Amino acid sequence: MDLTPFRDPASVAVVGASDNRSKWGYWLAAGALTGAHRRRVDLVNRNGGTVCGQPCATSLRALETPPELVALCVPAEHVPRVVDEGLELGVKGFLGITAGVANEPELARRIREAGARLIGTNSLGLVDTATDLRLAWGTFTPGPLAILSQSGQVGSELALLGARHGLGISRFISLGNASDVTANELADDLKDHASVGVVALYLENFTDGPALLDTLRALREAGKPTLLLTVGGSAASSRLARSHTGSLTSNLDVVDAACRAAGVARVSTPAELIDVARAVLTTKPPRGNRVAIIGDSGGQCGIAADVAHANTLAVPHFSHDIGVTLPAGAAIDNPIDLAGAGEQDIANYARIVEATLRSDDIDAAVLTGYFGRYGMDIPTLGDLEVATAQRIGDAARSKPVIVHSMGPDSATAHALWAAGVPTYDRIEAALSALKGLATFTRSTEPPLPYQAHPIGTLSDGYWATRQLLTEVPFPKGFLVRSREDLTTDLTPPYVLKANWLEHKSDAGGVRMGLSTLADAYDEMVARLGPGEYVVEEQDTRPDTVEILIGIRRDPDFGPLVVVGAGGTETELHQDIATELAPVSPATARNMLERLRCAKLLHGWRGRPPVDIDGLAELVHRVSVLVAASPLVGELELNPVRVGPDGPIAVDALIIPTARQERA
Amino acid sequence: MDLTPFRDPASVAVVGASDNRSKWGYWLAAGALTGAHRRRVDLVNRNGGTVCGQPCATSLRALETPPELVALCVPAEHVPRVVDEGLELGVKGFLGITAGVANEPELARRIREAGARLIGTNSLGLVDTATDLRLAWGTFTPGPLAILSQSGQVGSELALLGARHGLGISRFISLGNASDVTANELADDLKDHASVGVVALYLENFTDGPALLDTLRALREAGKPTLLLTVGGSAASSRLARSHTGSLTSNLDVVDAACRAAGVARVSTPAELIDVARAVLTTKPPRGNRVAIIGDSGGQCGIAADVAHANTLAVPHFSHDIGVTLPAGAAIDNPIDLAGAGEQDIANYARIVEATLRSDDIDAAVLTGYFGRYGMDIPTLGDLEVATAQRIGDAARSKPVIVHSMGPDSATAHALWAAGVPTYDRIEAALSALKGLATFTRSTEPPLPYQAHPIGTLSDGYWATRQLLTEVPFPKGFLVRSREDLTTDLTPPYVLKANWLEHKSDAGGVRMGLSTLADAYDEMVARLGPGEYVVEEQDTRPDTVEILIGIRRDPDFGPLVVVGAGGTETELHQDIATELAPVSPATARNMLERLRCAKLLHGWRGRPPVDIDGLAELVHRVSVLVAASPLVGELELNPVRVGPDGPIAVDALIIPTARQERA
Repeated sequence: MDLTPFRDPASVAVVGASDNRSKWGYWLAAGALTGAHRRRVDLVNRNGGTVCGQPCATSLRALETPPELVALCVPAEHVPRVVDEGLELGVKGFLGITAGVANEPELARRIREAGARLIGTNSLGLVDTATDLRLAWGTFTPGPLAILSQSGQVGSELALLGARHGLGISRFISLGNASDVTANELADDLKDHASVGVVALYLENFTDGPALLDTLRALREAGKPTLLLTVGGSAASSRLARSHTGSLTSNLDVVDAACRAAGVARVSTPAELIDVARAVLTTKPPRGNRVAIIGDSGGQCGIAADVAHANTLAVPHFSHDIGVTLPAGAAIDNPIDLAGAGEQDIANYARIVEATLRSDDIDAAVLTGYFGRYGMDIPTLGDLEVATAQRIGDAARSKPVIVHSMGPDSATAHALWAAGVPTYDRIEAALSALKGLATFTRSTEPPLPYQAHPIGTLSDGYWATRQLLTEVPFPKGFLVRSREDLTTDLTPPYVLKANWLEHKSDAGGVRMGLSTLADAYDEMVARLGPGEYVVEEQDTRPDTVEILIGIRRDPDFGPLVVVGAGGTETELHQDIATELAPVSPATARNMLERLRCAKLLHGWRGRPPVDIDGLAELVHRVSVLVAASPLVGELELNPVRVGPDGPIAVDALIIPTARQERA
Repeated sequence: MDLTPFRDPASVAVVGASDNRSKWGYWLAAGALTGAHRRRVDLVNRNGGTVCGQPCATSLRALETPPELVALCVPAEHVPRVVDEGLELGVKGFLGITAGVANEPELARRIREAGARLIGTNSLGLVDTATDLRLAWGTFTPGPLAILSQSGQVGSELALLGARHGLGISRFISLGNASDVTANELADDLKDHASVGVVALYLENFTDGPALLDTLRALREAGKPTLLLTVGGSAASSRLARSHTGSLTSNLDVVDAACRAAGVARVSTPAELIDVARAVLTTKPPRGNRVAIIGDSGGQCGIAADVAHANTLAVPHFSHDIGVTLPAGAAIDNPIDLAGAGEQDIANYARIVEATLRSDDIDAAVLTGYFGRYGMDIPTLGDLEVATAQRIGDAARSKPVIVHSMGPDSATAHALWAAGVPTYDRIEAALSALKGLATFTRSTEPPLPYQAHPIGTLSDGYWATRQLLTEVPFPKGFLVRSREDLTTDLTPPYVLKANWLEHKSDAGGVRMGLSTLADAYDEMVARLGPGEYVVEEQDTRPDTVEILIGIRRDPDFGPLVVVGAGGTETELHQDIATELAPVSPATARNMLERLRCAKLLHGWRGRPPVDIDGLAELVHRVSVLVAASPLVGELELNPVRVGPDGPIAVDALIIPTARQERA
């Protein structure tokens, strides 16, 4: 439904307007009146009187013409009455700045049925500087930052931090409890908003994740990249995890997978968001993560290289002479220590940046230290420093340049900003901004589309799972219902497994290395009781690596695929990669390469490499199969033993969606 | 030797004084003159003239009385002449602000032999605000921060960042190349400096590490804790690593071990140093790492909890009712979301902080969000907010309180600071400051003293190493020089090892699970050639865990002990703990508990716990043995298989110091 009333309403009324500066009713009234030059602004207060010098009507009904948008700044108990009054008058939008409204879903339903919409009711406000719509506490300078926040206070902090760094606001929306208008709708509404350059999104939950991802992808395509701030990294998973896959993937792993698929950069704090936003707004993403560090001090260069490393940026050596000589004869390596050449001639900074950016070895340059401060300490150097900043800006059109400066607010810093080069006051901010910027080049492909040709009925037990997963290679084996079934023409050694156990090893439900079966069977039956057992040929191939492949469904984002270091010590190593499912073989391979244990796959300490492509193909296939099978809540193959001749799954577990929901 | 000339000289001369503001000669002259009220200040310039309105002498000899301290601000080629002139006159201290002096060791020797001392020669200056000694570029406000930096520029950045946060300087020393006076001497000289509250130390190398650690420990005992900034985290180890132990421990691991032993907090950037310094100066270290997060916004509380988690701080639930009711009935959990109660009544912030700090569940409190900004937005609330800040300061006398505020420079923030509560503008700075503060409670004991009862002669090969390490349990075994030696009464299965190979598994020099020896011996001899072999009983104990124990010598800090996840995949897991050696059994146990694989030691997925105390005792013993044996360059036991009944080393390697140096 149409959100125009919240963007550029023809008229607005603030109900609960007040002349008391410590009340929201004051800030909303004063803010609304700043738009009086382009829309009718009415103020309503039960007691009449004047607010900001303008007389108040005593009710909406008392207004000459009904407003298009109503800001509700009244105590919760009055909200339903005012809303009903507004709906009768044909109001199209309500902005609720009130906590504790009773029976709010019902109120939202009434509003929608009347063809109107509601933001809130416990929003902390709505601002659009492009249309001079200001219905929030505080002052907002126009600028390219759009803030859409589920927490009003986090939204305010973002606005304040932005203002402190010269970053104005195009649109500020505090979502509140979103009884009616959703985050997704409001994000989508930013797509064609000309003033929006970057979107700051704070969300605590992700209802209808796939639709949100579509919106964020569309925003990015519209040139409005999104930076996402969320919480949940420290919260223990509340769900009782029955599979390794479940216990290994945190909420943030899932959100990060979603961000990669949507081309969104996730940040951890409001300040980091503003740092990255400043980079996103001034310069383009680097093509890769290789950075040149340039400074006039070995110490600052060294610190920067360490911080780059901690931000997963590479500081590679140059493979060739970059073709620039410095007066002091400073050695050109990376980091590049000008060793006094910058102080000798400020223009050397520009020369070295130009030469560095021409190198195919690097994707971005970071200047660290004194540049930006010369003019502050020696005013006669000011003009040369600003001119050098402009030269650096020219060079930065090819690849991003980020500056950490001891003079972060200097005239030079402003010249750098104007020329497309953001400046930061601490090296860690400069490099985390570059890291954030680089995420926009490192997106993975979105989940594959898939046909619904699902697994039909699910039966309990390992044998049934083996039978279902026709595309997964398992060892040769057979089901044993009684002692008579033990005859076999399989090749020893054998493995004997209790068919019904989920974590067989832990429960003593696996015996390996058997040359005969009868005794082991008797022993296991005596211990675990009668039931179905499975006999398999033991995988005795040398040089195999144990990998976990898991699929589970996230309530918000749908199917996920997890690969990781497998075996019984999976949780110990916490070596996993997660993506939205299904994944292509290429994405699956990329996931495997991201694991710490990828080195084992490539051949560890003289061992031959294993069949990574075969493994990636298997990951791809099971991800498609499970995504298409809504009955399957989780599927886990652990371990999959992969050798030079391919993968074999030696245990498998399906947790049906139905059973998962009971847990 | 006496460093008084560098602290409060009776007289100072600046040689190379200049009236050109873009020259160091200007800044040193102008700075020196600010101390003219307490000491004679002479300016020297070959050409005479006046600088800062004071006439210059044309040489040191031309001065009426010889100065105690001389600042050398002349081109490198003039330095030796000026020094010799000074030494003749009885000058006691030289501060060199000049790069590229030829044959500097010889110059330093001449100075020392004359009973004088030299800082530099390529220092960027020396400041002592307590004695108005200012011989550096820039302006320095008095305050508690001492800066001792091997990089002049990093020192300047620290001073600037300190100034930006209201942190003045007691002493600023740019070490330069330290041809004579060392970092250790200058650090030691801070011990009895009344104005110094905290020491910022930037060092790139650590010559005579143990003496430096003694100094830093003494500084801490004198109430002047040190924050260390260094580099090297991203540099690839240049030494060719022959043992796992060597390849696993980075330079920073060693520095971190040294910092723990000396009670020093290591930081990664200048800004982080200033953040931590502000906390160290205002409040005392927390007793542990458990933090309460308090805010008036669920979003800000959640972000803070995540950032705390990332900083290895715990945000525990309260084990009991903390005995405070909030008007809004906000649930008291941790994080504590006041949910509007702060806005209702600012004093609620103080109430909740007081109640929280009384709880035995937490060691510190962090306030996040709007507190500190109320008075800025609503001036009528200013007095109440400041009064609340003072109440919070009173409460903070029991346990530290750190504030992240959206009004970081407000009157309330200043009141907090005065009351012993530091305020930060970004939540990550607040929490990294708390983390830094907490390192002062988490020091390990310094390395144990040890008697010299060293291993005498070293012989090559595994068998000789076994024989030397009488305190290390090995499997039963015997040496095989020829086929005739193969008769044995050991219990199979056997292990056959090529005695001379360093990494036996990788080279095919180990065969396990042998029930007879002859065939395997013939095969291995055919493959690897004749030589000494070792037969051992195979350790078939169930439920063992493989651990690495390594000792090596760091060129700066001496013997180190490393424990880690052992076996052939040691480098893959990178799961290690490092301390200066020798370690007590208690420290050894603490190291083992820090490993990710500690969970395996405690009994993984139903397995019995292993003998951790026995393992810790073994770590202790080999650390004492090797520390006392200078011939041993590295010792590595990998793996040590530890089970419920104790540890057994199944491979051992000694790299003699002599052979290491050849490598």
